[in-house]
Amino acid sequence: MALVGASGDAGKNTARPQRYLKKHGYAGRVVPVNPTRGEVLGERAYASVADAPDGIDHVFVMAPGEAVEQALEDCGKRGVPVMSIYSDGFADAGAEGAARQARLAARARQLGVRLLGPNSMGVVNLPGRVALTVNAVLEMDAPPAGTTSIVSQSGTMLGTVLSRGAARGMGFAKLVSLGNEADIGAGEVVDLLAVDADTRVILLFLETVRDAPRLAAAARAAHAAGKPVVAYKLGRSALGQALARSHTGAMAGSDAAMDAFFRDCGIVRVDMLETLVEIAPLLAGRKPPQLTRAPRVAVVTTTGGGAASVVDRLGLHGIETVAPGSDAPIIDLTMAATPQKYAATLDALLSSGECDAVLAVVGSSAQFHPQLAVEPILAARRTAKPLAAFFTPHAERSLALLAKAGIAAFRTPEACADAFAAYFAWRAPRVAPRLPQVERVSLEIPMAQSEVARGPDYAHSVPYPVAVKIHAPGVAHKTEMGGVFLGIRDREELLRAAKALPGKEILVQKMVSGLAEAIVGYRDDPLVGPVVLVGAGGVLAEVYKDYVLRMAPVSVAEAEEMIGEVKGLAVIRGFRGLPKGDARALAQAVSAMSRLALVRGRPVAEAECNPVIVKAQGVVAVDSLVVMKE
Amino acid sequence: MALVGASGDAGKNTARPQRYLKKHGYAGRVVPVNPTRGEVLGERAYASVADAPDGIDHVFVMAPGEAVEQALEDCGKRGVPVMSIYSDGFADAGAEGAARQARLAARARQLGVRLLGPNSMGVVNLPGRVALTVNAVLEMDAPPAGTTSIVSQSGTMLGTVLSRGAARGMGFAKLVSLGNEADIGAGEVVDLLAVDADTRVILLFLETVRDAPRLAAAARAAHAAGKPVVAYKLGRSALGQALARSHTGAMAGSDAAMDAFFRDCGIVRVDMLETLVEIAPLLAGRKPPQLTRAPRVAVVTTTGGGAASVVDRLGLHGIETVAPGSDAPIIDLTMAATPQKYAATLDALLSSGECDAVLAVVGSSAQFHPQLAVEPILAARRTAKPLAAFFTPHAERSLALLAKAGIAAFRTPEACADAFAAYFAWRAPRVAPRLPQVERVSLEIPMAQSEVARGPDYAHSVPYPVAVKIHAPGVAHKTEMGGVFLGIRDREELLRAAKALPGKEILVQKMVSGLAEAIVGYRDDPLVGPVVLVGAGGVLAEVYKDYVLRMAPVSVAEAEEMIGEVKGLAVIRGFRGLPKGDARALAQAVSAMSRLALVRGRPVAEAECNPVIVKAQGVVAVDSLVVMKE
Repeated sequence: MALVGASGDAGKNTARPQRYLKKHGYAGRVVPVNPTRGEVLGERAYASVADAPDGIDHVFVMAPGEAVEQALEDCGKRGVPVMSIYSDGFADAGAEGAARQARLAARARQLGVRLLGPNSMGVVNLPGRVALTVNAVLEMDAPPAGTTSIVSQSGTMLGTVLSRGAARGMGFAKLVSLGNEADIGAGEVVDLLAVDADTRVILLFLETVRDAPRLAAAARAAHAAGKPVVAYKLGRSALGQALARSHTGAMAGSDAAMDAFFRDCGIVRVDMLETLVEIAPLLAGRKPPQLTRAPRVAVVTTTGGGAASVVDRLGLHGIETVAPGSDAPIIDLTMAATPQKYAATLDALLSSGECDAVLAVVGSSAQFHPQLAVEPILAARRTAKPLAAFFTPHAERSLALLAKAGIAAFRTPEACADAFAAYFAWRAPRVAPRLPQVERVSLEIPMAQSEVARGPDYAHSVPYPVAVKIHAPGVAHKTEMGGVFLGIRDREELLRAAKALPGKEILVQKMVSGLAEAIVGYRDDPLVGPVVLVGAGGVLAEVYKDYVLRMAPVSVAEAEEMIGEVKGLAVIRGFRGLPKGDARALAQAVSAMSRLALVRGRPVAEAECNPVIVKAQGVVAVDSLVVMKE
Repeated sequence: MALVGASGDAGKNTARPQRYLKKHGYAGRVVPVNPTRGEVLGERAYASVADAPDGIDHVFVMAPGEAVEQALEDCGKRGVPVMSIYSDGFADAGAEGAARQARLAARARQLGVRLLGPNSMGVVNLPGRVALTVNAVLEMDAPPAGTTSIVSQSGTMLGTVLSRGAARGMGFAKLVSLGNEADIGAGEVVDLLAVDADTRVILLFLETVRDAPRLAAAARAAHAAGKPVVAYKLGRSALGQALARSHTGAMAGSDAAMDAFFRDCGIVRVDMLETLVEIAPLLAGRKPPQLTRAPRVAVVTTTGGGAASVVDRLGLHGIETVAPGSDAPIIDLTMAATPQKYAATLDALLSSGECDAVLAVVGSSAQFHPQLAVEPILAARRTAKPLAAFFTPHAERSLALLAKAGIAAFRTPEACADAFAAYFAWRAPRVAPRLPQVERVSLEIPMAQSEVARGPDYAHSVPYPVAVKIHAPGVAHKTEMGGVFLGIRDREELLRAAKALPGKEILVQKMVSGLAEAIVGYRDDPLVGPVVLVGAGGVLAEVYKDYVLRMAPVSVAEAEEMIGEVKGLAVIRGFRGLPKGDARALAQAVSAMSRLALVRGRPVAEAECNPVIVKAQGVVAVDSLVVMKE
């Protein structure tokens, strides 16, 4: 390892990699590179990578400015395969920095040198005793080695997850701070972890996604290797998106598209940061549950009041609780229960067909008698069904005992419920339809009969009643600009409406009525690519954000599943005795719309039919819009 | 203190009060009452309260069965003013237990003995060194005394909050486990804490509310005394409600009504359990912020990545972040910032008019150099504006340093954002309108013109187009039962519709069209009393649950504020250029409906107008329903 810019002042960030490599038992040689000193922290220093001894596997650059470019040239000359860069001033620093980063990456490709960063805090391999990082979390004495690996776009948060996990006795394997991903990205690292013998679960801390297809393929590979991939992704709020842009220079995609992407490639998304720290044992070695009904958790407790907070929260996630053989919502063993009875209860639940997971809620004994408190949980048979614990008091030792045993344990009812919700929402990667690219696509979505009528007589052959609209192809939001008159019943009303509109032409459209209004949309998301959307339509579509997204294309069957998840489309599913709408025809429209993703070169930026009138038989689009890429 | 049922086996729950009183320095005399022993844990024991020495202030009963009733009789005879009951088998144990509890409470009133419980874990006064409790949390050596008091319906969770807080160095004053509230309830305890010199903030852990008017009055008294009251209330999900019912025997109210109740009397509601532990210093000594625009938090950090997770979460709560004098979303001082510069930045923000609160996000230094990390935060001037910290790593010592200084510090981005959201949603108690009770009330809500028409000719004087409905007064959900025909244009269509309906009479109603459909409702909630509701109406009202509730009655101005918060009523607020609806007329209808709360004896259980058609001028109710109490 060569450390470019290694400081001789042990208190500086740039002295950390050398200190940490030594502290955590790195067995190889460490070579400080510092043009101003002959020795750094007791090791002989060299003026440049060019001057350093042979056999360097990895150069870590911490020096500012042109030293980065120089180190790269030297790596090229000396045949160093990998260079990690802590230095910033690249894509994190505006357009000029981004251009500098592009030049650096291009040159690295020419030279055959792989880059991690810039703006990366480095890499850590705990089982392998390599702590090549500036992250202060490695100040801790002996972070436990384990089977969970972390890949993070934020160096700080890599440290956060390690710090919090280690404090609870949770072990980690590989930790990679991606930085700006000029070359090596999240996808490639996940690919490596998918075949890494030390890794059982892969955690992602993401501010953006820069390599969606690669990451998707890697997540699929990890799934095939039986390794769950979990993501905590910022940018759920507009504020978070704005910050991610300013912080990473990344483009903004929509969070709903990101959700669709994760689902598509089998990545488990968690909502809370603490869940990212706590969830690994819940998933390790398990497969997606793939339930077709609401999930059921059996909650066993010796403290009814303590169970209530987590049960209430599970309910908010649509998770049911069951007590097999009883009407009670939970299994309250009362404080008098013996450890034997407790363990037998857990075993019976773990082999019961009536629940999908088992949660033990433990009260104050978890704080004062940890061994006793967790004994029945440790004794329970390990099955494919998840077993987890929630401790109501401050209970560090109990948490550590379960961490050591590889059993999921939660500090808060909220993260516990979030983890169960994420587990139950976990899906195997979708088997992507292998459809050929096409030159053009017919959407086959029926449109309401319409004609352009021209003044002064505005003759047309559309039967009354009609809608009269401003004739301005490509104009969105006609309603808002006062350009739509509905329910025109005769020629007289038509002439009056035409007079109120600008231009010599109007659009005359047959009035269509049905059971519900839907929106069907397509968007080529800048981060994750083509997605298709179906939702409740009309003016309130935007207000309620009641829609379901999937990666495009989708089959008609997949589209029907999407429609089933749109709350407002309950009205076409026979809600409150109302007549049913033609969900199949709507699904065909959604599937057709999604095939825009197959057009060679993907020229469409976005497309939308809104409203689509859903009738008892068939659907009719009343307005539509297509925006081509520039 | 007399302890009825005190065990001589130190390992038993029933030995705890005696052990804990001693351990935590109780200065008075403790008298074990145990009919089978002459001595308990080194103290002389007595066979009954009747046999005990004079001067007993408080009897704590832990013995099962009839011993409770016997102890009460003895308290009465001996003039003991208060009896706390740990024993269960009362309202927590079905109808029979509830009857037993009613008898006990009635007898206590006769005898002039106040009761805490049954099913109470007791009371703790940390500054006063009284640990009269069976809660194992008092096993800890020296729970820090402080100024936050806790009132809990769950004894376990009382211990949870104390355990977690104490582990972080947070001090507490009085802790009261309410149990079943047969006599002394949450409201009375809050009343006492409002005048308690040791208490600055009051935390409530609630499974239900049994004494809404009393609790509301107490919360108002606490507000007047400058003491914030914070509630964590279970029963947000149907599952949580079912559990609370089975666990406490309490009735179920609606969670939205509970929200309205808390808001009305100035109680701050938190969403997460951890927030209940962490929020006190954020509120202590402060007043409700009462902002009229979106709240703004200035986020100061030395670690951009670390700030992102909390900023994203703040954004989900509708909170903005600002960096005065800059376009950036946060103030990133970078790791090179001196403590002086950091402190100066905090001071400037605390006195800036551009932000409403200041949040410092601290990275790994919080773990390894806590004194240094929190120095600028401790040095910042204390102002009326909240200052808080979020530490990204595991940072117990930093958390404890801020706890000691009375500055809010958060472990997770989620609880941090939840606490800020709760703070900004905090309102002073509403000045309740002092309106007289009335014998009857006129709702003055215009109804669509309608007439009952009778077969075979169904003559009527309502102008076409009309709606034809089944004539069945008091029947809800006419649409679902196929009992409504809309847009009937002439007599011929009317006869056809009448034929399709059962009975000899039909309701003929003028067709009304407008800009939006609203729902206006009233309910006498079984827990909190009369509430009024306005929401988006029509068939989807139930699907989107897009409504706003307040305690009834409300003024027209308050109703207008409510209407402004209903998302789906954006369509009457000029959303997307649509014509504006008569919000004032709708508000008048809401206010009128809310006056049902003033009718003597409150005979109405619920009332609803749905849909109410909102027009450019005025509103018209198309269907309505009133359910009287039984």
